[in-house]
Amino acid sequence: MGDMLALVKTSPTVAELVNVPIPECGPEDVLVRVRAAALCGTDLHIFAWNAWAQGAGIKLPFIMGHEFCGDVAAVGSAVKTVSIGDKVSGETHVPCGYCYQCLNGEQHICNNLRLFGVHRNGCFAEYAVIPAVCAKPIPPAITYETGSVMEPLGTALRAIVETNAAGTNVVVLGCGPIGLFAVASAACLGAAGIIAADISDARLKIAAQMGAGRTINPTNDDLAEAVLRATNGYGADIVIDASGSVAAVKQSFSYLRKGGKIALIGLPDKPIELELGKEVVFKEAKIIGIHGRKMFETWTQMENLLSTGKLLVAPAITHALPLSRWREGIELAQSGQACKVIFNL
Amino acid sequence: MGDMLALVKTSPTVAELVNVPIPECGPEDVLVRVRAAALCGTDLHIFAWNAWAQGAGIKLPFIMGHEFCGDVAAVGSAVKTVSIGDKVSGETHVPCGYCYQCLNGEQHICNNLRLFGVHRNGCFAEYAVIPAVCAKPIPPAITYETGSVMEPLGTALRAIVETNAAGTNVVVLGCGPIGLFAVASAACLGAAGIIAADISDARLKIAAQMGAGRTINPTNDDLAEAVLRATNGYGADIVIDASGSVAAVKQSFSYLRKGGKIALIGLPDKPIELELGKEVVFKEAKIIGIHGRKMFETWTQMENLLSTGKLLVAPAITHALPLSRWREGIELAQSGQACKVIFNL
Amino acid sequence: MGDMLALVKTSPTVAELVNVPIPECGPEDVLVRVRAAALCGTDLHIFAWNAWAQGAGIKLPFIMGHEFCGDVAAVGSAVKTVSIGDKVSGETHVPCGYCYQCLNGEQHICNNLRLFGVHRNGCFAEYAVIPAVCAKPIPPAITYETGSVMEPLGTALRAIVETNAAGTNVVVLGCGPIGLFAVASAACLGAAGIIAADISDARLKIAAQMGAGRTINPTNDDLAEAVLRATNGYGADIVIDASGSVAAVKQSFSYLRKGGKIALIGLPDKPIELELGKEVVFKEAKIIGIHGRKMFETWTQMENLLSTGKLLVAPAITHALPLSRWREGIELAQSGQACKVIFNL
Amino acid sequence: MGDMLALVKTSPTVAELVNVPIPECGPEDVLVRVRAAALCGTDLHIFAWNAWAQGAGIKLPFIMGHEFCGDVAAVGSAVKTVSIGDKVSGETHVPCGYCYQCLNGEQHICNNLRLFGVHRNGCFAEYAVIPAVCAKPIPPAITYETGSVMEPLGTALRAIVETNAAGTNVVVLGCGPIGLFAVASAACLGAAGIIAADISDARLKIAAQMGAGRTINPTNDDLAEAVLRATNGYGADIVIDASGSVAAVKQSFSYLRKGGKIALIGLPDKPIELELGKEVVFKEAKIIGIHGRKMFETWTQMENLLSTGKLLVAPAITHALPLSRWREGIELAQSGQACKVIFNL
Repeated sequence: MGDMLALVKTSPTVAELVNVPIPECGPEDVLVRVRAAALCGTDLHIFAWNAWAQGAGIKLPFIMGHEFCGDVAAVGSAVKTVSIGDKVSGETHVPCGYCYQCLNGEQHICNNLRLFGVHRNGCFAEYAVIPAVCAKPIPPAITYETGSVMEPLGTALRAIVETNAAGTNVVVLGCGPIGLFAVASAACLGAAGIIAADISDARLKIAAQMGAGRTINPTNDDLAEAVLRATNGYGADIVIDASGSVAAVKQSFSYLRKGGKIALIGLPDKPIELELGKEVVFKEAKIIGIHGRKMFETWTQMENLLSTGKLLVAPAITHALPLSRWREGIELAQSGQACKVIFNL
Repeated sequence: MGDMLALVKTSPTVAELVNVPIPECGPEDVLVRVRAAALCGTDLHIFAWNAWAQGAGIKLPFIMGHEFCGDVAAVGSAVKTVSIGDKVSGETHVPCGYCYQCLNGEQHICNNLRLFGVHRNGCFAEYAVIPAVCAKPIPPAITYETGSVMEPLGTALRAIVETNAAGTNVVVLGCGPIGLFAVASAACLGAAGIIAADISDARLKIAAQMGAGRTINPTNDDLAEAVLRATNGYGADIVIDASGSVAAVKQSFSYLRKGGKIALIGLPDKPIELELGKEVVFKEAKIIGIHGRKMFETWTQMENLLSTGKLLVAPAITHALPLSRWREGIELAQSGQACKVIFNL
Repeated sequence: MGDMLALVKTSPTVAELVNVPIPECGPEDVLVRVRAAALCGTDLHIFAWNAWAQGAGIKLPFIMGHEFCGDVAAVGSAVKTVSIGDKVSGETHVPCGYCYQCLNGEQHICNNLRLFGVHRNGCFAEYAVIPAVCAKPIPPAITYETGSVMEPLGTALRAIVETNAAGTNVVVLGCGPIGLFAVASAACLGAAGIIAADISDARLKIAAQMGAGRTINPTNDDLAEAVLRATNGYGADIVIDASGSVAAVKQSFSYLRKGGKIALIGLPDKPIELELGKEVVFKEAKIIGIHGRKMFETWTQMENLLSTGKLLVAPAITHALPLSRWREGIELAQSGQACKVIFNL
Repeated sequence: MGDMLALVKTSPTVAELVNVPIPECGPEDVLVRVRAAALCGTDLHIFAWNAWAQGAGIKLPFIMGHEFCGDVAAVGSAVKTVSIGDKVSGETHVPCGYCYQCLNGEQHICNNLRLFGVHRNGCFAEYAVIPAVCAKPIPPAITYETGSVMEPLGTALRAIVETNAAGTNVVVLGCGPIGLFAVASAACLGAAGIIAADISDARLKIAAQMGAGRTINPTNDDLAEAVLRATNGYGADIVIDASGSVAAVKQSFSYLRKGGKIALIGLPDKPIELELGKEVVFKEAKIIGIHGRKMFETWTQMENLLSTGKLLVAPAITHALPLSRWREGIELAQSGQACKVIFNL
């Protein structure tokens, strides 16, 4: 079918934008003309080829990227769920379809889960092949840029849905893209008080734009004290961790109210030490792991909310560049100057 | 303690603003200096002394009114939950405290339920006595006017909470005060699409201000068709009936999606005929009766949302009058020119 | 592939056991060697070719039957979820896989739902072809006979799950097979008090064997009074209607407690008249339609419970006959002498 | 009112059965003629006056014991919920009635929680005074002995209710009284597979009697392997920790299925180290703290289930002694020879 431009991780030390053949579309696959793709922390790890990347089962050379939106260009012979021309966003969790989890409404945590953009070639390219089950048709009213961040947005939205945040006081730890999306989701779904915390004042400024009623930089202010003051001393109903900071999660038990919930989206890189009696049992805390989006309940919620303009994502997208400027995008992200970086194609 | 002004229904044909003694406060009661009170459809029935009012167990003479907000002026000897000077809003459901429902988290539908303003004197007066359990302290940030409509607001909010409206398409039938509050609650809690229906264009205009994305006057437009068009033919996820119209409820089964929910707040005055097989079983519809507010989960949600300005009530309050102009208020409400009428005291 | 015996409805007035070709297995289908099939009320309607059957979209000639269990004899080229030799039970709801309901965890009420054994040939035959998605592998510990009734059993179990019956007082209306399975499911899932009602004393006897603590024949005893007496006057927490009797459902609102739930499995043949204010709103009743089994959460629960012997089904299976005696089976069922009739093959 | 026998902790080193005055009943209290009281691990700590007991805020001399059942002998002047002669069981969580938790259906984790038998005199005595809110009337069909263990039973039952165990595979860690009650509750509420683990074969034997389908002594067998084998390699749906063993809880993450839940009832005496990414986020584990019984939803469930004989408690009660033999009871419990010890009065 001809060639396409793709950002290829060719070796541990090299990534380059090169011409490669447009990939073949298997019988259960969909070929998508990518129109926007978003840069995620995982992509930075793969670019840097750090310890995690080396152990993640990635086979080089490898087309980077996993968050995207585009138009269906071709469908495999067995595909019935999408048609050529459909606008689709990519779900990155590839379920097997027959395990215990898949048969019980939990295909997003399939027992044999594979990840698009990790275990198979990704989307920083003019075309991408994705399993049909993961090519989610979205309404035309959703732009390509917004569509390209629905994957991380959905994780954040789901944390708010699972913790049932309407009418409550919520603390969001970490204001990277997912944390910001959690702030926006909390605001959209009726959280009453939203306190966002980050060590970057620039990101806190975005958090305020996206719905945080109060922002705290813990290098300057005492987060625990601020939360307790804002809640008459009872503590927060809900904590959403999008920081991956063990220290932040540990501290959160000190200002979580009795009966409160902690949802974990971030990925701490070291173990946490918990006093289960004091911090969980007597407090009746609930600690809730969140890994991705319900397939496809969370997508339906996003589609409905985005197409009616109820869920705000724009402020988190600080940069949109053509893919040819991919290196600049990665540097912006690495330096912390950018929040979410989009590549247009 | 002296006298006070009160709007008293003295006989089937007469209501008048008269001086009566300030009521005594029993050991488990609270005396409230009423600052704002809101007129409800129930009050119009009592004023008109219609068939319902005659059978409701009201003993004349009777101080009218049940929705109010004010400051605690005195507390009974056994009262620990509020203090003199607290700003309180009145919960009208008076629970017994020991029945099956009361012991199982459902005191709002107490098996021996009594209603403030029906089974005992109400709040269209300078002072009102209410059982301590029903005097809900509210944050100072909530105004007296807003506080006076928390009772109907809570019923509407609860319908949205119980139907879990985040990210869904909701139809609200009837745009009287409770219907409008349901629109605002749906908007606040993240309903994606909100269609409001009423036969009054003036009320639909308010509905649009309060969050309805689409308004339908069924005398001019086909509601069922509009809902189906807005939902790709699937139908609404949720219908909230605040109209009490049997015809409207009946029709709603034609545009409720398979798996959808109908919450009933309105009180139909005649029986409905349902085809349970087609309309409920095959469709897996859920029909949910809503009678008042969870005590006090719904109040907590309201307090949090109102004190942070997230939940919009103002547009529904079309008139605020001194109690001396009570007759004008009743006439405005009867004629349909007013939506919610407040009496200031 | 040769011929097989099948019970074929050949014309409005004729059904006969004849030799027909073993059906072809499409790419997404599974061919099952049927070992046990169960007779359902729907089959009686089709046999009698009554008004419902005439309007159900059945094309004659037609192989009757939809409840079955057997072994996979062949699989279509695209099938990955089952293999030759697997023991499978048949889910009768055939979902499209791409509608709103299918994408949101509700494929059992697919917007384009087709029914196995109604809209396509059924299972009263040595072989049956079923879409792979509906061929549910079950553990070997579940017998063919038990496997053949998992479809109706699942509907009953789901009603108990959806109403959350643990620790409650439950009334089951109607003790046909599904009602009896509801009794057994309630007993298994920890309902505290189970009152079963039917006009057949023989069926009530089976209900008692399956877990009903009290049985009521409403022709002799006052059901409402019995329920109120058993619940200190509060009324039942949960009513499961498996009778399809409008009179029985109507009466149940008189003994449902405030805050109670009514799950409807039966299919009333005429409209019901409800006073929504008194019977639903003031009472905060929930009316819940149940149409089949969650795919496949309900199946997982059944498989786990049946393979550990926790869920009792045997007493409801009063007759097991070879398919050659199909006419006797139908007569037993029509006369009410039999409860569940199984055909062995 | 005269004297009574009571087991009094008089000093750090001494406990003795002595005559003390029958306590006065305050206006909101209830005086109960204790008929059966149960020995709990907490009582052993207080008896031994270990580090925990020294820091628990207990003021000596102190009447020991907190689990009991008896008959109401007198009620305070403000008490309406119970009457003289009522059979009551004691809820030990004393709520304040006006905090955030108390007003939101979570009085069992009241922000100002006090514990009967720790912060005020207990029940190893002929009479005990308990706040009226904690004197739960129970049906006469429940014996005094059973009534005396409803407090720990309720904690166990609630863990099963909160984890929604019907139809699932459950692992119970620790077969002390609460663990055994968790096994019985799981069996009663329809858990399909129940694996109980303890290092005492005697207790495992009781676990088998109470509903465990499989028992594992981890000193002899590999628990993780056993769970994985019993669940086709997927892992347990639910783990209930009643052991308080950090090692056992830590190991449980290795055999919890993706999407599984861990409910913590036991109180670990040292911190646990968790890898939140691997053990909670990717797995979507839920960790749920359980501290006591919902007031009074859990009690209602217990009353219904115990009075119909559905919930088995007897095998866990290994010894019933007159209070005069209290020292023997404590020694039996300390040595691990006894499971639950009851004192009759």
